[in-house]
Amino acid sequence: MSGAPRDTSGAAKATSCDKLVIGFDGDDTLWHNEQLFADTQHQLRELLGHYADVATIDAKLLEVERRNLAIFGYGVKGFALSMIETAIEISDSRVSARDIHQIVMMGKSLLEHPIELLDGVADVVDELAGRHRLMLVTKGDLMHQESKIAASGLADRFWQVEIVSEKDPATYRRLLDRHAVAPSDFVMIGNSVASDVLPVLAIGARAVHVPYHITWALEVAAVDNEEFPTLMNLRDVVALVDQWSS
Amino acid sequence: MSGAPRDTSGAAKATSCDKLVIGFDGDDTLWHNEQLFADTQHQLRELLGHYADVATIDAKLLEVERRNLAIFGYGVKGFALSMIETAIEISDSRVSARDIHQIVMMGKSLLEHPIELLDGVADVVDELAGRHRLMLVTKGDLMHQESKIAASGLADRFWQVEIVSEKDPATYRRLLDRHAVAPSDFVMIGNSVASDVLPVLAIGARAVHVPYHITWALEVAAVDNEEFPTLMNLRDVVALVDQWSS
Repeated sequence: MSGAPRDTSGAAKATSCDKLVIGFDGDDTLWHNEQLFADTQHQLRELLGHYADVATIDAKLLEVERRNLAIFGYGVKGFALSMIETAIEISDSRVSARDIHQIVMMGKSLLEHPIELLDGVADVVDELAGRHRLMLVTKGDLMHQESKIAASGLADRFWQVEIVSEKDPATYRRLLDRHAVAPSDFVMIGNSVASDVLPVLAIGARAVHVPYHITWALEVAAVDNEEFPTLMNLRDVVALVDQWSS
Repeated sequence: MSGAPRDTSGAAKATSCDKLVIGFDGDDTLWHNEQLFADTQHQLRELLGHYADVATIDAKLLEVERRNLAIFGYGVKGFALSMIETAIEISDSRVSARDIHQIVMMGKSLLEHPIELLDGVADVVDELAGRHRLMLVTKGDLMHQESKIAASGLADRFWQVEIVSEKDPATYRRLLDRHAVAPSDFVMIGNSVASDVLPVLAIGARAVHVPYHITWALEVAAVDNEEFPTLMNLRDVVALVDQWSS
């Protein structure tokens, strides 16, 4: 879906099995994201500070986001609308139009924020792209994700770019089918256990958890007895993937 | 990107050339859309009627939408945020939080509105699906378009479903490459000359214009001397396509 170059000969390549297909999540795996949302939420607390305390504002925002997720989906525009609803509800409709305008502008700032790659990302992606086929699998707003991928400077390292509305087992199965990749040849790398690890394990592929320093409350997964590697540094992924592909 | 079934053997099928690939736009080609936006805009006029007259409100909304298009893209969530900005600007920040809440709810109503197919759509799609491969090519919000396609009941008639952020020549070329379809085998059918006709002609494929009774101001195309068929009734597409494929 993105402006990234695509290789249309994917089905043919997929039959040469010495290479793996390495899936990367984008937000908080390749570039900073949740920190920007957290900074914005901090601004919202300041704006609404004379109506309620921090804990009340945070709880209300989470409640509104959870209520709206099924209708808005992921992304900044839905977050902006949820912040506006939070401001109205927490102020008992006393919030001013000027403050709501401020919230709209906070949403626009998030949409226009420059991309900052996480430490080591460019090296790791370069190195893996030389040995494997890379697939970017990211969820959220189609246009915003496309612009982030373009701004990352990484687009040409990826064999395929897939922007999806939800990361569940059915989505991963569909993507692998579409590009004729066997689950045994697929490794997903991402910061979210709920989105990047558990649904990938569920379809018989492998996954590596590389945590970001913040996890959005609606992405926190309940992990039972699933086993998967967690690496604190993306650079360590290279050695693990080398081991898996040998 | 949608939950619609996909045929992963597309590359193989594309070599049997007696069939065309028929692209359909979704909004205002298969189901009503612009009328719902127009109805919502009517509600906005009523809400803001004590700040300005209808012409001023409409002009401001169009100005705000045009300004925001590059950052919000197409879709209801961006439209809701643009309506909120319009209300704030037109009222010189006097609009109440209650009225802004009303606008948020108008956006949610649009997102949750049931799908109403245009007259004849189910028959035409059924008939063409029996003889050709159908591709749905729609732009806008990923999650909302997916839910509309699912609600249309038509998803299983489509060989491919593609949700894109912009319909320009590069996008159409990428989609045809991806599915190994020659431009000479592709016919696009849609209500928007700017999105469904001109960019398709530009890559050497064919297009049929089937107007909807309203065209959004930002979709109105300047047509020079391009020639393409315009059919006032979607049912007439079947005969034209039959003629082209014989």
